Amino acid sequence: MTIDRLLEGLRQRDPRAIGRAISLVENGDESAEIILSSLDENLVSQATILGITGPPGAGKSTLTNEIIAKLRHQEERIGIIAIDPSSPISGGAILGDRIRMMQHATDKDVVMRSMATRGRLGGLCATAGAAVRIMASCGCSTIIIETVGVGQSEMDIIRLADITILVMAPGLGDEIQAMKAGLLEVADILVVNKADCKGADILAMDLEAVTRKGSATPTQVCMTVATEGKGVTELLDRIDKLDSEHRDSGERQKRRRGAHNQEVLDWCLEILRPQLLDKIIKRKLSVLGDPRLKAKKILEEK
Amino acid sequence: MTIDRLLEGLRQRDPRAIGRAISLVENGDESAEIILSSLDENLVSQATILGITGPPGAGKSTLTNEIIAKLRHQEERIGIIAIDPSSPISGGAILGDRIRMMQHATDKDVVMRSMATRGRLGGLCATAGAAVRIMASCGCSTIIIETVGVGQSEMDIIRLADITILVMAPGLGDEIQAMKAGLLEVADILVVNKADCKGADILAMDLEAVTRKGSATPTQVCMTVATEGKGVTELLDRIDKLDSEHRDSGERQKRRRGAHNQEVLDWCLEILRPQLLDKIIKRKLSVLGDPRLKAKKILEEK
Repeated sequence: MTIDRLLEGLRQRDPRAIGRAISLVENGDESAEIILSSLDENLVSQATILGITGPPGAGKSTLTNEIIAKLRHQEERIGIIAIDPSSPISGGAILGDRIRMMQHATDKDVVMRSMATRGRLGGLCATAGAAVRIMASCGCSTIIIETVGVGQSEMDIIRLADITILVMAPGLGDEIQAMKAGLLEVADILVVNKADCKGADILAMDLEAVTRKGSATPTQVCMTVATEGKGVTELLDRIDKLDSEHRDSGERQKRRRGAHNQEVLDWCLEILRPQLLDKIIKRKLSVLGDPRLKAKKILEEK
Repeated sequence: MTIDRLLEGLRQRDPRAIGRAISLVENGDESAEIILSSLDENLVSQATILGITGPPGAGKSTLTNEIIAKLRHQEERIGIIAIDPSSPISGGAILGDRIRMMQHATDKDVVMRSMATRGRLGGLCATAGAAVRIMASCGCSTIIIETVGVGQSEMDIIRLADITILVMAPGLGDEIQAMKAGLLEVADILVVNKADCKGADILAMDLEAVTRKGSATPTQVCMTVATEGKGVTELLDRIDKLDSEHRDSGERQKRRRGAHNQEVLDWCLEILRPQLLDKIIKRKLSVLGDPRLKAKKILEEK
């Protein structure tokens, strides 16, 4: 596909062109610059970016599926970016859960993209940010970023979202419950999924108690049973209401600015990383001695 | 504590001095350079660095505990670095599981350190690397890095290890099982823990089948019941044998070199990150437009 045909495809909002454009950016292709500077910034500004995070087993994918179904009834075009905590070497497998999203796979107004965390510390935030922009520019009025809420790079991605939803469920075990401490800090809306299971009420009370500390208005917890679609309409109302508030108060713009700065930083590091690694390898450094001092010397030379 | 007293404490191998030294490096204190260049490189070279990874609920901490107990019978001094997938903002909570390690808390020859992934993409690898060096220099002949095997920064840390053990268990659910694909690629030794539970044999056969692909010698799976100490001696024998092989074949040196280069790169990025972010914020960039292009411009100016 030539770049001109690709840009025409994006103007036509062709899902295949969207997929191709994201791949080119992901692979650091030269055309990335042309693609990213051809986008409709107005649509990017208007779109709502939802982050959905939570530990494994909480039912994120099922809930995401239900949210998609409800939004599609309102004739919205939707983008999904699913972050896989997968292989650092091969780019790895797609989570089994993701396959359930296939119920929307034949819907051309649901644009899906799976991204592996891959062999990089940085860069994922930059690439996911680019994917969000491309999807928004091609008419996706809501873009959902879904990620297992563990690991630093996954957390950084959530900062791209205008509104972040933390999905928890009862009975996930101690180690997983312990992860919530970090996740609570990035969440705007708390969901207890599998609300028909034992322990759901206690979990909700526990979450409310934690969020009440140091806050005048405790965060109200949404109860859902995603497998039956229960509570999803109420959750979407909450999202809408909060999104309006954030638009009015300037909170949304503030977050976008923070995310944009982070994306610029991420791209800077992404550009510098291979240059620096090349320099380091060429040095044939001894494995002895202080790596920090060696780093300083390499930077001073530049 | 003055720097001279701290260095004297390190020479005396005082656990409190070790803890203090790691904190100073972690906080980017000026004295980090003096500390890191005062270490006994010979001991750092000789120590064995073990990585223990696996999904939540597999029993990593219990197994680590058993390994510590067995090694302590051989009068080894041991260092533990536990990576918490916790808060990006506060530095966050310590996993409940870690508390079990307290059985060794009064043993001055078990040096423990918990590290949060914190609000940084890079830097964790650099800090964990420094902690390994400090512990080794203070007489720890084995250093264990324990991490939940999810997320890019966690994966990068595992590369600091000479030998990496992947701990799995039956019955952890689909989403967690799916994570193993990425983890298998970094694992030298596979452990099925909770081997007395239903599904353990099937999981072991499944793991062996996966590792057999593209390899002449399939990886043999170790079966353990960590809560009863079963299989731990056999696991330690496997570790010893593989470590000897790697020392003889040059594999160990090759890995150390790769890890060292990665550490130097990590420090480079850690030094550059705040400088770049400062520059970006001062620009008061518009949230519109291509972040990649803006990054390029900022780097060109330097």
